[in-house]
Amino acid sequence: MLCKIQNLCKYYVRATILKVATRNNSCEKTMTSKEILEWYEKACAFHTKRAPGLAIGIAMVDMCRARLGPVKEKLNAISESPACLCDVIQLMTGCTMGNRYVKSYGEIGRFALTLYDRADGRGVRAYIDLDKISASKTPELHKFFLRQRSDAVKAGGEERLKSGDLVVKEFLTVRDQIIALQDVFIEKFGKSEMLPAALCKSCHESFLCHNKEEECASCSGKLKYYRPA
Amino acid sequence: MLCKIQNLCKYYVRATILKVATRNNSCEKTMTSKEILEWYEKACAFHTKRAPGLAIGIAMVDMCRARLGPVKEKLNAISESPACLCDVIQLMTGCTMGNRYVKSYGEIGRFALTLYDRADGRGVRAYIDLDKISASKTPELHKFFLRQRSDAVKAGGEERLKSGDLVVKEFLTVRDQIIALQDVFIEKFGKSEMLPAALCKSCHESFLCHNKEEECASCSGKLKYYRPA
Repeated sequence: MLCKIQNLCKYYVRATILKVATRNNSCEKTMTSKEILEWYEKACAFHTKRAPGLAIGIAMVDMCRARLGPVKEKLNAISESPACLCDVIQLMTGCTMGNRYVKSYGEIGRFALTLYDRADGRGVRAYIDLDKISASKTPELHKFFLRQRSDAVKAGGEERLKSGDLVVKEFLTVRDQIIALQDVFIEKFGKSEMLPAALCKSCHESFLCHNKEEECASCSGKLKYYRPA
Repeated sequence: MLCKIQNLCKYYVRATILKVATRNNSCEKTMTSKEILEWYEKACAFHTKRAPGLAIGIAMVDMCRARLGPVKEKLNAISESPACLCDVIQLMTGCTMGNRYVKSYGEIGRFALTLYDRADGRGVRAYIDLDKISASKTPELHKFFLRQRSDAVKAGGEERLKSGDLVVKEFLTVRDQIIALQDVFIEKFGKSEMLPAALCKSCHESFLCHNKEEECASCSGKLKYYRPA
């Protein structure tokens, strides 16, 4: 049997954190289609598959960033989708899951994201304006957002890749028109709290203590995701 | 005011998805200290700050990967920590938040992670064996895991960076001894479900429908994280 992990070796991620075009400290310039496509290749490599939502997400991050302008402290981000958007946010903004500057609220399940200033909660939210997507002018993009692509496309493989390329191509002709921006304030913002640590009385590993409990969530059974082999 | 987003420009992320050392299709060789340090620089750039937990996480991912060996289908991963580990998993394995091959169970709050085969749930969990960390031989590493570093270190800045470098240096002298591995089976594995989409009757955006509800979690108030500016 071949080592399937090896398959991952072919992906090559090379990403430069978002270059902000500035003129007199203004951050208003947005990316060209060429720049979006360059980021798209990086995002596909990181994501380990080609997904048109990445290209759309790139333009969304870029437009939010341009509208938000300078931030006082740290840039933070929220993804409302469980898929795709988190990856472009992480690659482009330096807000990662591990540094906790990005949060995924995938339960909302909208294709939307928000960039905000951690100092004051001032943010810009980008979402898709479905009414602006023409079924005649950009049919594959329309089907993509309404989840109406053909069964052959849904099955994956070559058909899906072809459809994905077409979705990106159509998207680039209308991108500013279908992405809507909202100025928002985040309800809870600021530096995320790091909980105190304690020694779990069952597994004897150190764990972050939420409420003076003596066992970690795994040993207490609250979040027991594995069993011994 | 300077554009703080610009600060991000200085970070340069260049990552090659985990190179698997193979000999006769066996994946048993683990990284050298030099290789860990090379990955550490990439991980710090992605994470946008230097954090010794990244270097420790790199060795943990590497040891899990070596022990797990070939997988039948997709490699998937779980982080039990809300910080650091998710970033090394994403960079090294191609399991990202956006492709949903990695899950963060940060509520558990242990410095541990699991790599597993999505086909059958067979996995390897790496955790820290606190009993093996010597307070005399590797004092800074000991303080790091017991959260007993000095106030000057906790305050950040130069002292924190110096301590972090020392933690990494000490870690590399004992890494295989303090990282413990467990063979496990994941309770719930397999391809994650993509929910059907619906049009929210309030915001008119498309959202992933959990239970035939007519409103998204934001409009229903379940997860309303922002308000209009």
